[in-house]
Amino acid sequence: MNPSSIVSIDPALGEAVEDVTAPTTTDQVAEVCQAAAAAAGPYEAGGRKLWSRVLRAMAEALEARRPEIVLLGQRETALPAARLEGELSRTVFQARLFADVVDDGAFLEATIDHAAQTPMGPGPDLRRMLIPIGPVAVFGASNFPLAFSVPGGDTVSALAVGCPVVLKGHESHPALSVLAFETLREAARKAGAPENLLGLVFGRQAGIELVMHPSIQAVGFTGSLSGGRALTEAIALRPDPIPFFGELASLNPVVVTAGAASARGNELARDLVSSVTGSAGQLCTKPGLVLIPTGPVGDVLVEEAARLVTDTGPSVLLNARVRDAYADATGSFERAPGMRVIAEGSPPEGAGYAVTARLLETDASQLLGVKLDECFGPTTVILRYEPEQVGRVIDQLPGSLTATIHAEVDERELVAELTTRLRGKAGRLLYAGFPTGVLVSWAQHHGGPWPATNSQHTSVGATAVRRFQRPMAWQSAPSWVLPEELLDGTTNIPRRVDGTLDLPS
Amino acid sequence: MNPSSIVSIDPALGEAVEDVTAPTTTDQVAEVCQAAAAAAGPYEAGGRKLWSRVLRAMAEALEARRPEIVLLGQRETALPAARLEGELSRTVFQARLFADVVDDGAFLEATIDHAAQTPMGPGPDLRRMLIPIGPVAVFGASNFPLAFSVPGGDTVSALAVGCPVVLKGHESHPALSVLAFETLREAARKAGAPENLLGLVFGRQAGIELVMHPSIQAVGFTGSLSGGRALTEAIALRPDPIPFFGELASLNPVVVTAGAASARGNELARDLVSSVTGSAGQLCTKPGLVLIPTGPVGDVLVEEAARLVTDTGPSVLLNARVRDAYADATGSFERAPGMRVIAEGSPPEGAGYAVTARLLETDASQLLGVKLDECFGPTTVILRYEPEQVGRVIDQLPGSLTATIHAEVDERELVAELTTRLRGKAGRLLYAGFPTGVLVSWAQHHGGPWPATNSQHTSVGATAVRRFQRPMAWQSAPSWVLPEELLDGTTNIPRRVDGTLDLPS
Repeated sequence: MNPSSIVSIDPALGEAVEDVTAPTTTDQVAEVCQAAAAAAGPYEAGGRKLWSRVLRAMAEALEARRPEIVLLGQRETALPAARLEGELSRTVFQARLFADVVDDGAFLEATIDHAAQTPMGPGPDLRRMLIPIGPVAVFGASNFPLAFSVPGGDTVSALAVGCPVVLKGHESHPALSVLAFETLREAARKAGAPENLLGLVFGRQAGIELVMHPSIQAVGFTGSLSGGRALTEAIALRPDPIPFFGELASLNPVVVTAGAASARGNELARDLVSSVTGSAGQLCTKPGLVLIPTGPVGDVLVEEAARLVTDTGPSVLLNARVRDAYADATGSFERAPGMRVIAEGSPPEGAGYAVTARLLETDASQLLGVKLDECFGPTTVILRYEPEQVGRVIDQLPGSLTATIHAEVDERELVAELTTRLRGKAGRLLYAGFPTGVLVSWAQHHGGPWPATNSQHTSVGATAVRRFQRPMAWQSAPSWVLPEELLDGTTNIPRRVDGTLDLPS
Repeated sequence: MNPSSIVSIDPALGEAVEDVTAPTTTDQVAEVCQAAAAAAGPYEAGGRKLWSRVLRAMAEALEARRPEIVLLGQRETALPAARLEGELSRTVFQARLFADVVDDGAFLEATIDHAAQTPMGPGPDLRRMLIPIGPVAVFGASNFPLAFSVPGGDTVSALAVGCPVVLKGHESHPALSVLAFETLREAARKAGAPENLLGLVFGRQAGIELVMHPSIQAVGFTGSLSGGRALTEAIALRPDPIPFFGELASLNPVVVTAGAASARGNELARDLVSSVTGSAGQLCTKPGLVLIPTGPVGDVLVEEAARLVTDTGPSVLLNARVRDAYADATGSFERAPGMRVIAEGSPPEGAGYAVTARLLETDASQLLGVKLDECFGPTTVILRYEPEQVGRVIDQLPGSLTATIHAEVDERELVAELTTRLRGKAGRLLYAGFPTGVLVSWAQHHGGPWPATNSQHTSVGATAVRRFQRPMAWQSAPSWVLPEELLDGTTNIPRRVDGTLDLPS
C-alpha cells in the first residue's frame, strides 16, 4: 500500500485491505468546488420539482444497492449487519422525508406583502422567500457511515433546498464513501440534475481547503470538538466567514429518580447497558453520565448494570483513533479521585480495534474531579447522588444533545424541577426510553447548547434544511424575475400573504 | 464634566451639554446580567400573553412621551424633527407588529409527531417548538437612536420570543438611551413583566464584558465591521461561544441601465441624491456605488445629480467619529486613481460635526483602485460603465444589504442577467425606488452576504425574532411538562401535526 493513500482498513483486523484513492490535491479541491459552483445555478433553477425528484431517485438507488452497501459497511466499520441494514433504511427514509419537505413547500417561508399604506407612509410590494445558500461542504462522520456520511442527513438537507454538495469523505470508510457517492451521483444524473451537483474529496488538508474555498457557502460537520475547532478557525480566516454547523460533543445525562430506580431498577439497567454498548458505544446520543440515587434504592439498578456489563463481549471500535481515545478517556476517568471501576466486560482477543466494556461509578460530591467529556466506546459513568445534590450536579453539566429523566408518576414536583434545570442543558428532553435511536421526523431536534452544537439548528429531522437557506426579499419586482412560489396566482404551498398564513387550496 | 463620564454631546455644537452617567463597572455589568438571567424564567413562564402585552405597553409608553423623545433625539443626533418623528412612529409600529407576531404564534414552529410505526420501527411521541434562547445583549446603533437602539428592532425581537435584554447604550445618544430605557422598563413593569427584564450598560469595556458574561446567550449588533470583529473575538474566547448577529457594512450598489438613464435621468438623479443625503447619508442602506452608463445617455443623470449635490447644504453628522471617518474615507476616495470629485455642496460654517456633501465619479476600468467600503455621510461614488463591463464590476462587489436595478420594461434580458448576478451580492433586490427607507413588515429582509451580515437572518421585519430562539424537542413527555402550544387540544396557532400543517380553527 502507498503510505500516502486513502486506504480501507478492516477494524476487526486492524489492517489495510484496499487502497481506495489518493488524498485530494489542492488543485483538485479547487476544481471540485468550482464545478459545484457551476452546478448551483442550474440546480436552483430546476426548483422544487427537481430537488424532490433527485432525493427520491437517490433513495431508490441506495435501496437497490443494499446488499453491496451493507457488506462493504460491515468490512469498513465492524458494525453489525443488522445495525447497517437499519441505518440504510433510515438513510433511505430520510431522503424520502426530505423530498416530502420539498413537496410541502412550507420550508420556503414564502411571504408576500402587497404595496399598501402603512403608519409610516406608502409601503412597496415586498416578497420574501428562503433561497439556497450555495454550495455546501459536508463532512461525513465516522460512526454513521450512511446516515451521517456521504448519503446522510446533511447531504440531503442541502440538496433538498437547492444546494450542491461537496463531501469530505471520512477516512474510516473510504470505500463505502466512494460507493455511496457513485450511487448518489448516478441517481442525480438520471433524475436530470446538472453534472457535478455532488463532489467528493479525501484527506485532512483537503478538508481545510474545502471550507476555505470561496465557492463554499456553508459547512455541515459532525465530528470531534477539536476537528470542529480546526474548521472554525480556518473559516474565520476567510475574507467572508460562512456559517459552520457543527455537531460536536455530547454527554447526554440521564437522571434516574428514587421512584424509578426502586420501581424498575432491573429494566432500566438493561435498557441503559443496551444504549451504552449498542453500536459499540459510538453514538453521539450515548448516555455518558447516569445519575442514580445513593443507597439501596439505587444499588439494584447499579448491580444489575454491572452484571450486564461484565457479561458484555469485546467491542470492535471504528478505527485506531477512536480506540486510542477510548483508552485515554477511560484511563483518565479511572484515575479521577473517587472513581471506581465497577464492571469490565470480556477483554478482546487477537488484533484489531476491539476494546473492553467498562462501567464506572463515582459520587456526586466528586463531580468536579471528573472530566465531563463525551467518550466514544462502550462505557459510561454512574454518578450516585443524594436528593439535595442533584440540582448542583445538573448546573455543572455542559450542553448536550439530550437529557433524560426516568421518574414515576407520583414524582411530579421533582420532575418539574429536573425539567427546568435540564432544559438549559439540552436540545431534546426524554421522559421514557434512552436517547440513542434518533427518530427522523418533522418534530425531531438534534442539537443543543454548546458544545453539543451552536444550539439554534437541528441536524436531524425536517427543519435541518434551514441551515442551508438564506432569506431574500424582492421589492417592487416585475413578476417574471420572481420565483414561481412568490407569484400572486400560486396557491400550492403554505404562504403568508399580507400578514395572514394561507394553506394550499 | 468628568472626563470618564458618559456625556451627551450636541453634534451641532460639537460640545458636551450634559453629564449623563458613568461607564458601567465590571461588577455592575455582572449584576445586570445576573438580574436578566433571574428574569428569564418568570418572563418565559408568562408566555405569549405576557410577551405580547409587554410589547404593546412599550409601544403605548413610547408614543406617550413622543414630544420629549423627539426633542432629546434632535439635541443628541442633529437629525431633523421630521426624521425623528417618523423614526418614533416606525419604532412604535415595530413593537406592535412584533406583538402581532406573538399573537399569531407561527413563530414557535410548533410541531407534533404522535407515537407511530415508522419504517425504522416504532417511533416515540415527539414534540418540537422554538423556545427563548435566554438573555440577549443588544448593541444600539448610532444612526437610528430609536428604531435600532434601546427601543429598537433587536430589543423587541428578543422580548417578543421570551428573552430578557441587556442593552449596551450608544455613547452617541446616552440621554435618549436612558429616557427610552426608563420608558420601556416602566411599561414592562406595568404590564406585569418580572423586574430586570431589561438592563442597560454604557462604555466600550462594559460592552465586551457583556458579551463575555455567562448569562448572555446571544448578541444583536448593528454597527461597524471593526466593532463587530472585536465582539466576535471576545465571544470566541467564551468557553461556550454564542450566536452573534451583526449587521456590519453595506455598499448597496445601484445599477442604472441605458434605458432607465435615458428615459428618466433627471427623476433618478433627484431620488438618488435624496437617498444619498437624507439623514446626512448615515443609513446602512444608503447607495454607496451607482453604476451609470458612459456617454451622453448617462451624462444627463450625472449632471443633474451633480447640480443637486452642489445645491446641498452642510450636513451635521452624528458624532466626531463619524465625521472623522467621513473625512478619511472621502479623502482616500479622492486620491484613488481615476477618481473625480464632480460636485461639492456648501461647506459648513462654525463648530460642530458638519460636513460637505460630495459626489465622486470614476470609470468601471478603475474599479480595482477604489476602496469599496461603506462610507457614512452625504456622498456616493458614481461608476461609469460600458455595457460589457457591468458583469465584471458586479462580480467584484462585496456582499450588501440591498442591490437596486433601474431599467425599462423593454430591457428584460438585461434585467434577468443583472438579477442573476446581483442575487449573490445582496439580501434585498429592488426594481424601483431606492433602498433607504426599510419597511417593517412580514416580508421584509434586512441582511445579506458578508460583510452585510452573516446572511441567514434578518434584523428587520417579523422573522427577526428567529435569531433569539432555539429548538427544543420533548420525547414521550407527560402533558404537564409541555408548553401549552404543544398540547393535543390546542388549536389557536398554526402547527404541524403528524406532518400536516394546520391553521387555527
